[in-house]
Amino acid sequence: MGVVVNLEDERERKQPLEVMTALAADDMKAVNRLIIERMDSPVALIPQVAGHIVASGGKRLRPMLTLVSSRMCGYQGMRHVGLATSVEFIHTATLLHDDVVDESDLRRGESSANAVWGNKASVLVGDFLFSRAFQLLVEDGSNPILAILSSASSTIAEGEVQQLITANDTATSETAYLDVIKGKTAALFAAACRIGAVVADRPNAEEEALNVYGLNLGISFQLIDDMLDYSARQAELGKAIGDDFREGKITLPVILAFRRGTEEERKFWRRTLEDLDQRDGDLERAIGLMEKHGALEDTVERARHYGAIARDALGIFPRNAERGALLGIVDFCIERAH
Amino acid sequence: MGVVVNLEDERERKQPLEVMTALAADDMKAVNRLIIERMDSPVALIPQVAGHIVASGGKRLRPMLTLVSSRMCGYQGMRHVGLATSVEFIHTATLLHDDVVDESDLRRGESSANAVWGNKASVLVGDFLFSRAFQLLVEDGSNPILAILSSASSTIAEGEVQQLITANDTATSETAYLDVIKGKTAALFAAACRIGAVVADRPNAEEEALNVYGLNLGISFQLIDDMLDYSARQAELGKAIGDDFREGKITLPVILAFRRGTEEERKFWRRTLEDLDQRDGDLERAIGLMEKHGALEDTVERARHYGAIARDALGIFPRNAERGALLGIVDFCIERAH
Repeated sequence: MGVVVNLEDERERKQPLEVMTALAADDMKAVNRLIIERMDSPVALIPQVAGHIVASGGKRLRPMLTLVSSRMCGYQGMRHVGLATSVEFIHTATLLHDDVVDESDLRRGESSANAVWGNKASVLVGDFLFSRAFQLLVEDGSNPILAILSSASSTIAEGEVQQLITANDTATSETAYLDVIKGKTAALFAAACRIGAVVADRPNAEEEALNVYGLNLGISFQLIDDMLDYSARQAELGKAIGDDFREGKITLPVILAFRRGTEEERKFWRRTLEDLDQRDGDLERAIGLMEKHGALEDTVERARHYGAIARDALGIFPRNAERGALLGIVDFCIERAH
Repeated sequence: MGVVVNLEDERERKQPLEVMTALAADDMKAVNRLIIERMDSPVALIPQVAGHIVASGGKRLRPMLTLVSSRMCGYQGMRHVGLATSVEFIHTATLLHDDVVDESDLRRGESSANAVWGNKASVLVGDFLFSRAFQLLVEDGSNPILAILSSASSTIAEGEVQQLITANDTATSETAYLDVIKGKTAALFAAACRIGAVVADRPNAEEEALNVYGLNLGISFQLIDDMLDYSARQAELGKAIGDDFREGKITLPVILAFRRGTEEERKFWRRTLEDLDQRDGDLERAIGLMEKHGALEDTVERARHYGAIARDALGIFPRNAERGALLGIVDFCIERAH
């Protein structure tokens, strides 16, 4: 027990993401090899486009969640590598399709696949990766896991369509917004964690606990992402902000600022986000209004709330290094705000 | 035996598509009900967009192939209904994604989903239907069938990407073109038929025979489709032609006319299909050149060749009404040329 507690204490000293990354390092090497292997195709444009987005794919948070959840549940085999790869392929496919959807020009500072190869390639390579994800799951052969990930995929699509409907609609409620982010982001986080319990053949209660953990972590993660898009600090660090504003996406900071705003301010929100009539200085004014009404702070506050639920969900698992890492990831998600 | 032969003889008197439709009528009612039921979502835009494309979905050839193949193999249960619905959802998803891909404004005379709801909705509702297709297969629970359809899906995406690469390239070879249509069209025909043998628990040889039948039927079907896009007769009937020409798609009629053409004619093909510099009268000139070189006729000839392979593949099955209907569908595909 002592050693295990020590490991968990590590998260006090190391950054939470580093703890998780170190813990999953060997398994992630196998995942990265499988990603390269399974995104290959005789049609050369496919690995080109897929490689572009996979290479710019950042932290690989979702497959790490699968790997670490499996190990936390005591899983000893290597099936979790294929499952984690499948989760990453589904995520990459949605990024590619999101490129089409949002007409975004930049993703993480890289030129997006869309800007380089066009809408058509983004759609089709996304479809290819999505199919590959299911091929990996079929090879794995677990019907419950296939059910979890095919259901998550249709929930993601529903969330994205719901986001499309609420775009440019300043009347969007906080609940409607939550439904969107539960679908487009949290459903895959939840599935990524939940399948860890399934592969380890653990009882339903643990499957459900990891589902609740992942869902609430995902909500918290997306809330902070949406906050950061208006973060003056983020702008100071030279990171791009204002993407959501330019597209008229209705995220929680907007919803709170709109609802707390004067009639004059609401006119500003309607002009910029509904009519997309945006002028120099409008983004700065938007951030100013959010600060005035505490909308950014309270978005972080909401994220903390879901983070707390995520943390409590892990209470039923024994204290081990993996549980410590998963708890730490909740902190990591929220600490990005500062 | 006598009765069975009589039924097969029916295809002499009735149109082949009618024979097939009559034979599958009851099962197709169940498929249509399941389509409506499973394309539903609390996100109202999804059934709206999906319903639009499903309603304009034409003959439902692919799900009928699954139904009739299953029954030909002696299958007595109702699992084939879910499988056929899954096949139709995969097809519908590719149509929706094709709308984005080809920037086509019209599909079967209806305004396309894309023109009405935009790129974003087409991509996401396609993703939703694709996920639903896999959910249906997961509920069915057959790993071999999941393997066949997830593999077909990634082959479809490869074919579509290959088509993207060959677009506007008059140097495309007949073999490269064949690879494209094998992927984008024939792979799903093949899978739709093959799973009929799997659900009926028939030996590998029958599975393979239905795979060969479907693949060659699909090739033949697409060849005729590509020919019809330049058919003067089709134009006389008031049907839209020239879509492929306007997009610079390199189909077999173009490949044959280009390869058989003079240097002067090749300049015309390069200007219109590579540079997409098209003027009044160019489509008529393209059709004229194809007629001059027998390119349309020979495309039909190629379709007959693959049709003959499809027909022979069914030789190992006992003569019954279903086999008669599947043989008839080969005729139907080719007779559309006249």
